Amino acid sequence: MSATAKTMPSRPRKLRDVTQWDRETDVVVVGLGGAGGCAAIEAADAGAEVIVFELASAAGGSTALSSAEIYMGGSGGTRVQRACGFDDSTEDMVTYMMLSAGPQADEAKIRNYCERSSEHFQWLVDLGVPFKDSFHEERAIMCLTDDCLLYTGSEKAWPYVQQAKPCPRGHNLQVEGDNGGPLLMRILLEQVSRRDAITVEYDTRALTLIVDDNDAVVGLVVRQDQKELNVRTRQGVILCAGGFVMNEEMVRKYAPMLTKGNTPIGNPGDTGTGILMGIAVGGAAINMHEGFVSLPYYPPADMTRGIVINDKGQRFINEDVYHGRLGAFVLGQVAERIYFIVTVEQYGNYEKVSYLGAPVAGTGETVEELEQELGLHPGTLQYTLAVYNEDCARGEDSLYHKAAEWLTPLEPPLVALDITPGRGAFVPYFTLGGLDTKPSGEVVNTQGEVIPGLYAAGRTACGVVRRAEGYSSGMSVGDATFSGRLAGRQAAQAPRR
Amino acid sequence: MSATAKTMPSRPRKLRDVTQWDRETDVVVVGLGGAGGCAAIEAADAGAEVIVFELASAAGGSTALSSAEIYMGGSGGTRVQRACGFDDSTEDMVTYMMLSAGPQADEAKIRNYCERSSEHFQWLVDLGVPFKDSFHEERAIMCLTDDCLLYTGSEKAWPYVQQAKPCPRGHNLQVEGDNGGPLLMRILLEQVSRRDAITVEYDTRALTLIVDDNDAVVGLVVRQDQKELNVRTRQGVILCAGGFVMNEEMVRKYAPMLTKGNTPIGNPGDTGTGILMGIAVGGAAINMHEGFVSLPYYPPADMTRGIVINDKGQRFINEDVYHGRLGAFVLGQVAERIYFIVTVEQYGNYEKVSYLGAPVAGTGETVEELEQELGLHPGTLQYTLAVYNEDCARGEDSLYHKAAEWLTPLEPPLVALDITPGRGAFVPYFTLGGLDTKPSGEVVNTQGEVIPGLYAAGRTACGVVRRAEGYSSGMSVGDATFSGRLAGRQAAQAPRR
Repeated sequence: MSATAKTMPSRPRKLRDVTQWDRETDVVVVGLGGAGGCAAIEAADAGAEVIVFELASAAGGSTALSSAEIYMGGSGGTRVQRACGFDDSTEDMVTYMMLSAGPQADEAKIRNYCERSSEHFQWLVDLGVPFKDSFHEERAIMCLTDDCLLYTGSEKAWPYVQQAKPCPRGHNLQVEGDNGGPLLMRILLEQVSRRDAITVEYDTRALTLIVDDNDAVVGLVVRQDQKELNVRTRQGVILCAGGFVMNEEMVRKYAPMLTKGNTPIGNPGDTGTGILMGIAVGGAAINMHEGFVSLPYYPPADMTRGIVINDKGQRFINEDVYHGRLGAFVLGQVAERIYFIVTVEQYGNYEKVSYLGAPVAGTGETVEELEQELGLHPGTLQYTLAVYNEDCARGEDSLYHKAAEWLTPLEPPLVALDITPGRGAFVPYFTLGGLDTKPSGEVVNTQGEVIPGLYAAGRTACGVVRRAEGYSSGMSVGDATFSGRLAGRQAAQAPRR
Repeated sequence: MSATAKTMPSRPRKLRDVTQWDRETDVVVVGLGGAGGCAAIEAADAGAEVIVFELASAAGGSTALSSAEIYMGGSGGTRVQRACGFDDSTEDMVTYMMLSAGPQADEAKIRNYCERSSEHFQWLVDLGVPFKDSFHEERAIMCLTDDCLLYTGSEKAWPYVQQAKPCPRGHNLQVEGDNGGPLLMRILLEQVSRRDAITVEYDTRALTLIVDDNDAVVGLVVRQDQKELNVRTRQGVILCAGGFVMNEEMVRKYAPMLTKGNTPIGNPGDTGTGILMGIAVGGAAINMHEGFVSLPYYPPADMTRGIVINDKGQRFINEDVYHGRLGAFVLGQVAERIYFIVTVEQYGNYEKVSYLGAPVAGTGETVEELEQELGLHPGTLQYTLAVYNEDCARGEDSLYHKAAEWLTPLEPPLVALDITPGRGAFVPYFTLGGLDTKPSGEVVNTQGEVIPGLYAAGRTACGVVRRAEGYSSGMSVGDATFSGRLAGRQAAQAPRR
């Protein structure tokens, strides 16, 4: 190819311009992370011949980099939920996930996810994914023991708790330390390698889709060993190429709010090419502005007893929410500084185990002294703390509804951490927009019409998760593995061309 | 056409499927509002033969429904600015508009808009658009006299005032009452009709674009008298078909935040078809989640002396900002109620001239009584008002930086208006997302590559305005007329095919 004819994901190749086929198979999967692995396995188990193309030299995607908690429950509970005495219901799970996703929720997708969640659990178990029948009670972002079940979202926090019975749905793999992702991918890969119908080709970049005269997707152009190869598919292409968090220009253009974060979460391949290839053949991209931005302020769980204030000395959220929800609200404040106020004792615990890395902005033997040190308007923090401590004494947060279990008066000496994004605290972020798909994984155009031969799953699609303020850990890997499976099965059922 | 072969904006027609041409011209313009009118005039003046297709039975679009203030200035000022003693600078205008648009600002587009703004003023004057050399000093959403110049944004409010020298840039047409839009469109239409090179066809719906084998746009399919016509263009199609505020499904999918408004602002043709046609041929759609949502709480200007609080009794914004900025902040609050607190005297003025229509939520002979009536936590409003009134006495709003001219203590008896969106107040909204274009009006794909033969202007494109919180009146008609002109000129310069 000449330099001027660079193949771009923004322009499909026309079938009529294909002079030879270098590969041919039933189903092509782009990307071998959690979504791609599950898609390949299901497609193969449904009788399809599959080639998976992976950009990197090894499999894993962002799933391998994650804790791989998996958000599951509903319909009476998974085996683990039941063993731990939790009786989950599909309706509570649907309600919680609908609230989480907000006005842009895809109800059909969420309902399908919740209704088939226990079955998904069993499918994973059958593959060999180990879950221990145990409950991790302490508030945590991830479970560092081999225990399984934990609360990973805002289920017990206002306003969710008012509308859906809380239930822990985060399922941590039975492995010590933060090693769930590598384990999950190892198991998926072993399952992939056991299936003769699946071929994996690494170090291969997907360049663009191939479309026929009716704009149906009939193949994929890849680059391998510096050569472009045309790959013909008889049943379809499944895009499992991750999101676009590593593509700075796309983030700036589509999700500028995320630039307030400082640590993109994902693998280097998360450059949006899957999404761009889909857009180029008419796929609708939705929710592109949304992302996860978080202030992981716990552990220690004890931090939940602190309060978060803006530079007016006002609280603005119940501090027992999920850290992503807190992050979303912090970003929504028009304030030059945001502080986390804790006692000296709480600060001591924080220093030992925190991920947050927020610098100390001030300390005070009295509230007045802290107020002065932070440059707050005189009396504002004193007033906020007077109301808060009075509420703590009564056991009811009258303004922001933090649960009673976290209400203990904040008595000086106090420490203020500067959690303003951009001022030192760890603010991870990733994208939550992607191709619009049916629950089946079929990619649709702006009118909701299916684009024949094209599927998407995981972060390349816009899945059940729609915004940081309603996120719960485990929803990403849950969605990736579940949506990957559905897309794999759907593609394998398409008539062969 | 059979029912199953309905022509949709989501799928282009292939040139090879066109069996006959029903029309042929240099440049096709879709939509005869402010953008389309200016595009047609400029294209004709640059030597092109033009056909304009308008869905409605008459011209006008959303421009005719607007006040048609036009945001102009920079480079020493327009004739009116200079006559009124204002010495505007391009850099101040750029700085203000960049802050307004926020992180998703298109600097090239804004700079071009500001640098050529005085020239645009002169172009309008030369067409016959009348502007009186007078300044309307009172704070207003629109000017009901025939005076010209007024502050239409947040130029004098914090934080803008800190970074750019304020200057009024809203130019109201010389006409009594709220009749700027009809007058502007009458003048543009007269100019259109004077040009033999322009043909206008009404009652004609644009269905989809026609693309050749290289995905260049070479024509447009329209429906007229229940027949589909294929229109060949030698130079290009300019989409000036408005936004998508009237397409409920698109709003729900792309800009769900807007559903908190209750009054879509636009014409019935604002169904997004221009944007959808562009997406279907690979055009990038950006900023689709953003829109204008406003609480038009002035006039009377005196309302600016009131304070806005959430259901925690806290202020959260300086109340001297543009009403769109206030609206954006109200929507960002997680509060079950938002109140506007005014004195009985201010309420009396409000009752007489308000657009807002917010119901009274409570009244109080004392602050305590009002607090109780609103069900606020005891003491919160009392504290907020104590701080505020003390600040007013000192002449400095220490928390939110409302300008000193609006700081007068709020003394009981007080009235609280319920301005919670969805509770009776007038909350107009419109969309601010659209096709990504170069400043020239050329539509680009996700990689920034030009789609040959395709242009967009006005609300169909994503213009200089990017969000409600930084909006100023006059930016929409300013952008529509200016971007329409540029697209018309650019298309007319393309080589004829």
